[in-house]
Amino acid sequence: MTKEPILDVAQLAHFEIYSPKLEESVGFFKNILGMDEVGRKGNSVYMRAYEDHYHNTLIITENDEAGLGHVAWRATSPQALERRVAAIEKSGRGIGWIDGDIGHGRAYQFTTPDGHKMEILWDVDYYEAPEDQKTPLLNRPQKRPSRGVPVRRLDHINVLASETKKNVEFLEEVLGFKVRERILADDNSDVAAWLSVSSLVHDIALMTDALGESGRLHHICYWYGFPQHLSDVADLLIESGYEIEAGPGKHGVTQAAFLYVVEPGGNRVELFGDPGYQIFDPAWKTIEWKGKDLEKAIIWHGSNLPQEFFKYGTPVKSDVLV
Amino acid sequence: MTKEPILDVAQLAHFEIYSPKLEESVGFFKNILGMDEVGRKGNSVYMRAYEDHYHNTLIITENDEAGLGHVAWRATSPQALERRVAAIEKSGRGIGWIDGDIGHGRAYQFTTPDGHKMEILWDVDYYEAPEDQKTPLLNRPQKRPSRGVPVRRLDHINVLASETKKNVEFLEEVLGFKVRERILADDNSDVAAWLSVSSLVHDIALMTDALGESGRLHHICYWYGFPQHLSDVADLLIESGYEIEAGPGKHGVTQAAFLYVVEPGGNRVELFGDPGYQIFDPAWKTIEWKGKDLEKAIIWHGSNLPQEFFKYGTPVKSDVLV
Amino acid sequence: MTKEPILDVAQLAHFEIYSPKLEESVGFFKNILGMDEVGRKGNSVYMRAYEDHYHNTLIITENDEAGLGHVAWRATSPQALERRVAAIEKSGRGIGWIDGDIGHGRAYQFTTPDGHKMEILWDVDYYEAPEDQKTPLLNRPQKRPSRGVPVRRLDHINVLASETKKNVEFLEEVLGFKVRERILADDNSDVAAWLSVSSLVHDIALMTDALGESGRLHHICYWYGFPQHLSDVADLLIESGYEIEAGPGKHGVTQAAFLYVVEPGGNRVELFGDPGYQIFDPAWKTIEWKGKDLEKAIIWHGSNLPQEFFKYGTPVKSDVLV
Amino acid sequence: MTKEPILDVAQLAHFEIYSPKLEESVGFFKNILGMDEVGRKGNSVYMRAYEDHYHNTLIITENDEAGLGHVAWRATSPQALERRVAAIEKSGRGIGWIDGDIGHGRAYQFTTPDGHKMEILWDVDYYEAPEDQKTPLLNRPQKRPSRGVPVRRLDHINVLASETKKNVEFLEEVLGFKVRERILADDNSDVAAWLSVSSLVHDIALMTDALGESGRLHHICYWYGFPQHLSDVADLLIESGYEIEAGPGKHGVTQAAFLYVVEPGGNRVELFGDPGYQIFDPAWKTIEWKGKDLEKAIIWHGSNLPQEFFKYGTPVKSDVLV
Repeated sequence: MTKEPILDVAQLAHFEIYSPKLEESVGFFKNILGMDEVGRKGNSVYMRAYEDHYHNTLIITENDEAGLGHVAWRATSPQALERRVAAIEKSGRGIGWIDGDIGHGRAYQFTTPDGHKMEILWDVDYYEAPEDQKTPLLNRPQKRPSRGVPVRRLDHINVLASETKKNVEFLEEVLGFKVRERILADDNSDVAAWLSVSSLVHDIALMTDALGESGRLHHICYWYGFPQHLSDVADLLIESGYEIEAGPGKHGVTQAAFLYVVEPGGNRVELFGDPGYQIFDPAWKTIEWKGKDLEKAIIWHGSNLPQEFFKYGTPVKSDVLV
Repeated sequence: MTKEPILDVAQLAHFEIYSPKLEESVGFFKNILGMDEVGRKGNSVYMRAYEDHYHNTLIITENDEAGLGHVAWRATSPQALERRVAAIEKSGRGIGWIDGDIGHGRAYQFTTPDGHKMEILWDVDYYEAPEDQKTPLLNRPQKRPSRGVPVRRLDHINVLASETKKNVEFLEEVLGFKVRERILADDNSDVAAWLSVSSLVHDIALMTDALGESGRLHHICYWYGFPQHLSDVADLLIESGYEIEAGPGKHGVTQAAFLYVVEPGGNRVELFGDPGYQIFDPAWKTIEWKGKDLEKAIIWHGSNLPQEFFKYGTPVKSDVLV
Repeated sequence: MTKEPILDVAQLAHFEIYSPKLEESVGFFKNILGMDEVGRKGNSVYMRAYEDHYHNTLIITENDEAGLGHVAWRATSPQALERRVAAIEKSGRGIGWIDGDIGHGRAYQFTTPDGHKMEILWDVDYYEAPEDQKTPLLNRPQKRPSRGVPVRRLDHINVLASETKKNVEFLEEVLGFKVRERILADDNSDVAAWLSVSSLVHDIALMTDALGESGRLHHICYWYGFPQHLSDVADLLIESGYEIEAGPGKHGVTQAAFLYVVEPGGNRVELFGDPGYQIFDPAWKTIEWKGKDLEKAIIWHGSNLPQEFFKYGTPVKSDVLV
Repeated sequence: MTKEPILDVAQLAHFEIYSPKLEESVGFFKNILGMDEVGRKGNSVYMRAYEDHYHNTLIITENDEAGLGHVAWRATSPQALERRVAAIEKSGRGIGWIDGDIGHGRAYQFTTPDGHKMEILWDVDYYEAPEDQKTPLLNRPQKRPSRGVPVRRLDHINVLASETKKNVEFLEEVLGFKVRERILADDNSDVAAWLSVSSLVHDIALMTDALGESGRLHHICYWYGFPQHLSDVADLLIESGYEIEAGPGKHGVTQAAFLYVVEPGGNRVELFGDPGYQIFDPAWKTIEWKGKDLEKAIIWHGSNLPQEFFKYGTPVKSDVLV
């Protein structure tokens, strides 16, 4: 009988990005994506989408360069947290406990082999809407904002790694992630992988960094779930002077209706416009795309991806001009 | 420290309904909902939606009366299966092992306190599309049918119970279901509950049977995920001579875009037209609807539910005229 | 050879409604429907939707009672205007010329047999967006607002008449309207009629006033064209404390995806959520609904219409409680 | 006072295309676009979309080369027909009367300066659905087909011309078309023009043939009106082995959600996925796109157009490889 799956990580809880233009970045998430600012501390601003249940899911921290601050995962129980911390410590990637931050209690920090900083936690603060923001739709933590084209909830993160395989294995073995889909080179080496602990096709994706860099961010993603909202936000972006990098279009991988845009701080943001598909099968066999299938993997239909898509990440490296 | 959650059941795997008009029922799922017939055995027909990954998700068995045959759950691992079987046996609700059926291996059968027959299993057969039905969208097990308005995958089941609370507790304690939302009477007794083992708001719902009966089926549900398809299938249903019971409309509970129709055999079928919302929080606090909030729980907007909705189930009982 | 059709009226140009709560009405159209205030004069406020090409399409005038101020039609040419004015004068329904108003030049005023005040005009002012509101989408007169769920353009008006037939004939004979669809009573008398001069199924509809009153307004309508926006605005309406009278749902008549809500001043507003269908046939044979077909005429699918829908109009009459 | 507009042409009535693979072309329109075959005569097949009101809108005629057979316009009245025939004859472009064809009575044939064959007519046959295809939606001439992703109605035609300006002037002066939008080169010469007699932004478009040829067809277009159907038909096309040339995407010009695909006979077909916008203003000022605005004219968002799009037309000329 095979080993039981690790079911100790429940979900992506929040992420932190760096921005050299803090207020402009905050303005983008607030006015275009309809997110709310719910806290400030030091040079960090805490934000949330209207169907995020926790206090915040996005932290924007002022920094010289754009990039990833950290990624936070929530364990499935306090006991699961302890088990994963033990496993991380055993892997030699642990940093140590922090007391907590706005929106959550103590968390254990660590890094991936590629140097992406992560944390795992159990204690979270739920968002309590002020009276005038409470909605009769009781499963929605606050009213849908009447500003911009509001995203519903945090969806996933996509990071670049100097070597995909090693990082994928770390996430699989130490945290229990499952590889849902992957793209292979002709020599069967990993080019990109989509992993999740939940029914989402990916809570995190890893792609081999075309520039050979380590620790970079490809994009963060918020979710609409309805295709029309990609058209709506495309109008708003264009008429607000933003350049859409790609989309609306539909990936074969994950079946996601996508739109990519770079926020004022320089980080790429994906907006997910339809439900995609979901994985409930506990023994899911990884979907493998390679060779002749790759074209449809990347674009099932609609907008193509520009070359920049495969090179640009944050921090920005000098041989990519945007 | 609180007890750890039971994470041994992964998903709803399939269900069986009874129909006094077998071929007409099969025709409905085939021609209106675009499902495929993939097997026959005895007086049962096995069917699947085009994004169902297992061999089949719907069994229609000829029977004098409409109603529920059984509901099948898939465990998260072989070990998890053994643990749940032990728990079921301890509960006194176990029936015993069967060798399997078309599409799956051995399964352990049991009943809920209300008498709904269920089974839990690990071994499943994946669907292998014939060559001409394979699609370059590798995460889709077969081509999208060009017939009717094809549903994508099985979603959930909703059963009537003479007493909701006792059955909810059975599912929670023995199988690890979590109560995601519930409707309470003024005296705080349970009227209805939506439970899941997955990120779906419900894999199963239970509602108190207004007629006081036991073991009845309220409806089975297949999923579209896109709101337009409810309009499309509404056209097809009306123009094919079916009467839509309710919808398209939107529930507050589960945020589901719904449409209800009775298939020719007499069983109610729900079609789920948008992504609804999902629950990734491992410590989700049950949403409770009662009193003044109830109206929005039932209908957030759009089509109302007729009185029949709250009484009609299968087998049909004589004091409901449809 | 039959007489040639009158092609002298091109379109609905604007309408004026009365509101006892001027600022609240303005707030509704501004914050919920994303319309802009573009002028004020006396106790009137002039507003526009973002794809209205003329200066304004809605005038809200403060008044003791809600109701219709006037409806304005644009002629197809200056010559066509003269011809229609001559015809109106001949009909005995003419009032006379006015010099113009904010957004248009001289106009000829008249009343329908039922007493609804109308005007016909040629000279219009086109909207010139301020620099920061100009869009690179050159066929759109201004940017899509980032506020509320913005309607695109004015669609139609629906009025109640003490006698439908006489008013329909006036519009047909004097102004060249064509009856696109109508509902007939069992005795073949007119219950309601949908008329247009354009390819829209209706620029104006008339319904027999169930209270026997004259000159009342049933509703004004703005257009989205995309079904998702009805769901979006339904969320916004409900969470802003408005009660949706009916919808989203789909009429058989006109194939319109509808939502009805009463604005704070008391006037009913329809929001049209899909393209409906259009009539390009110059010899269109009126669609007639009666008897057994009526149910589908009123609701093709989705939300029902409450009894109030068939009685409530503005000014509100005392025997209708809302 | 300026001259009155010519209002003698009401709409595009039908078009005929040539196909070297007749049965395969018919199969495409039937099985992918859900159209019905309603007649055969000689080597021609007559087809219709389910919301086309006339007997047929598409004629496919077997021919050595793909291309345009003819385009038919319906006059606004019998008198209007006579006036236009007189004007055509005066222009020297007339061919003469034909007795009629399946679906219409006598028609007057002529050619544009570029050699595209057209006809104008008044007498049409309305489609009478067989009993089992009648729908309770009385404004729909037949049931929505349950096959493929059915288009609703004919929309427009787009032709290539060796010189755009001269042909545009012919349509304006002789037939009363209005130029709704146009693309200009840096020297202000016409590159493309969108013209209509109806409220549609275009019933016909003309683009300068990049190969300098005369009389070629760029594409014919059928209309969905709902964006989801472009995604649906994209799935069906890809999984049926067709290559989508471009789309789904959104043009700035006409605000059309588009998808382009080449049917088996070689002719390009556009599918129009949303309502676009409409023109009711009888004095519409032509929208002019040039220079820096061109990029957004061609693609507002989503899929790009490949170079082939600007060269490929039918008949296919040898210096374009597809």
